[in-house]
Amino acid sequence: MANTEAATVTNKQIIFRDYVSGFPRESDLNLTTTTIDLRLPEGSTSVLVKNLYLSCDPYMRICMGKPDPLSSSLVPPYKTGVPIIGLGVSKVIDSGHPDYKKGDLLWGLVGWEEYSVITLTHYSHFKIQHTDVPLSYYTGLLGMPGMTAYAGFYEICSPKKGETVFVSAASGAVGQLVGQFAKLMGCYVVGSAGSKEKVDLLKTKFGFDDAFNYKEEKDFSAALRRYFPEGIDIYFENVGGKMLDAVLINMRLHGRVAVCGMISQYNLEDPEGVHNLPTILYKRIQLQGFGVCDFYDKYSKFLDFVLPYIREGKIRYVEDIAEGFESGPSALLGLFEGKNVGKQLFVVARE
Amino acid sequence: MANTEAATVTNKQIIFRDYVSGFPRESDLNLTTTTIDLRLPEGSTSVLVKNLYLSCDPYMRICMGKPDPLSSSLVPPYKTGVPIIGLGVSKVIDSGHPDYKKGDLLWGLVGWEEYSVITLTHYSHFKIQHTDVPLSYYTGLLGMPGMTAYAGFYEICSPKKGETVFVSAASGAVGQLVGQFAKLMGCYVVGSAGSKEKVDLLKTKFGFDDAFNYKEEKDFSAALRRYFPEGIDIYFENVGGKMLDAVLINMRLHGRVAVCGMISQYNLEDPEGVHNLPTILYKRIQLQGFGVCDFYDKYSKFLDFVLPYIREGKIRYVEDIAEGFESGPSALLGLFEGKNVGKQLFVVARE
Repeated sequence: MANTEAATVTNKQIIFRDYVSGFPRESDLNLTTTTIDLRLPEGSTSVLVKNLYLSCDPYMRICMGKPDPLSSSLVPPYKTGVPIIGLGVSKVIDSGHPDYKKGDLLWGLVGWEEYSVITLTHYSHFKIQHTDVPLSYYTGLLGMPGMTAYAGFYEICSPKKGETVFVSAASGAVGQLVGQFAKLMGCYVVGSAGSKEKVDLLKTKFGFDDAFNYKEEKDFSAALRRYFPEGIDIYFENVGGKMLDAVLINMRLHGRVAVCGMISQYNLEDPEGVHNLPTILYKRIQLQGFGVCDFYDKYSKFLDFVLPYIREGKIRYVEDIAEGFESGPSALLGLFEGKNVGKQLFVVARE
Repeated sequence: MANTEAATVTNKQIIFRDYVSGFPRESDLNLTTTTIDLRLPEGSTSVLVKNLYLSCDPYMRICMGKPDPLSSSLVPPYKTGVPIIGLGVSKVIDSGHPDYKKGDLLWGLVGWEEYSVITLTHYSHFKIQHTDVPLSYYTGLLGMPGMTAYAGFYEICSPKKGETVFVSAASGAVGQLVGQFAKLMGCYVVGSAGSKEKVDLLKTKFGFDDAFNYKEEKDFSAALRRYFPEGIDIYFENVGGKMLDAVLINMRLHGRVAVCGMISQYNLEDPEGVHNLPTILYKRIQLQGFGVCDFYDKYSKFLDFVLPYIREGKIRYVEDIAEGFESGPSALLGLFEGKNVGKQLFVVARE
């Protein structure tokens, strides 16, 4: 009994208050402190982890909306009154699972809290085997967003050398990689983003052939014609709405649209109307929605592909790292206003 | 000179007056009479044909609109002041081409006139080899619409036994076949059409599991939920607009939409907005626009597949045949008001 007491520590948590409509606010998330026993009960098959880096991703807005059978097909809604669930990089403190032992590192779904007890399910968590790269990369480049860019670009877009590629939200966690993959493939790639700083990043750091600030464009279609006078073969869709509408009429024959996200629509009560769908017919275009969840069987193949490029400096990754557990809510909410520059995450602890 | 005179006959034509916005009217098409020499000039490589059956197809409305680089990617705009171009079944009167001789039958692109001089290009015309089936079928079941249904259903939709299939404009030239192909595959199939008569046809003649009159439904989505309580795996899209919007939120995970036509949109100045595109992401849906022009290399495979079913009475086909050359304009315009029951065509001559 004395031993049990000794292993109990405080555990800060960020609690999901209630379902959100419109833009989420900090008041939708409550910071609280509870306690946790750092030893698992006898016979447990769970894993107890200390969370190091927690990830802020656009899909989390979908989980914050009222439970809805449509969006639940992609991601489950949050439960109210308990910590937000997200992706993170964590260190094993205690383990009842044969695949993990104390000190191991993993990435996958954890609560927004300092310590989590996790139950392993199919592809819910991945052991981190390579630590010569920044650990935080497992929330981005080497985690879900990286795998999303890889599956979306190579599997969904079927890219060919010389094709033209447009990426929206191009400096984000996924977009910056899609652009670099497109350059590796010998494509011409242009990205859109929401500030001069981001546009500069795209051109100077990530090697996009060109980039533009969509906030400075009154007519998205005219902007796209400027960069793609011959049209777009591949569109990597992260935003939806008006941008999708403008892209459709600029697509080339047999073009492909990988629908990865529609961040511009998540905070709307009713999604915007997209008018140019007859173009899908005229240009024989493919629109393919996809979720990374359907592709995790390719994760080790992805690591084999991407790790050498990282080590050689041929793939670069920009992170926007907030400091401290308390910074989580504002880091997450900033995503929906485009405040982040690069992959947004926050540090809970460095080890 | 005397010989030439003797071979000259009158040639009635339906002339395309000018580009159309909104619903086309009969005044957009002028009936005229000219003359034609029934012998080709020495050295010609063309083929001179007598047109027997001429086809009325929804895509023709696209050709009647102002020339536009988008829609031209699928079908070229009509030229004003000359006969409308369409698909037809014709008999060879004179030939300068080694593949055709007098008396041969063919189907393909001809002018709306009694006699046409045609230039053969890649897949522009097909020689008719099987005449134990109605010749008029080569404007429908055995022609472009049949090939469209075949390619769209088998190649684009990747159907599996037991899947649920929805077909709009289901009693039309293409839709009635898609439903029958779906039944052959062991799918559950429901169609929508615009009258009680058409709905009855779907259920009694074509073997659809169920069918509904969309004009009697205030809420398309509610209607679809009634017929597909578990959702739709495959949507064969012929209409676009509100129906597409309603279908999207009723699609199942990994559903497929073959975009074959959007007839509800062709007469609108601006296409309607479709709001439920985020569902493409949530349900990981594929929308694929296609044109039969990309699939004609499979035409002989299609004939091998479909002819035995026709001969055994296992595939049925309903045609709406108008009589006489002068009936062409009203037959065509009737398509856009849904007046046709089954595949619309008109007879110019029976031999």
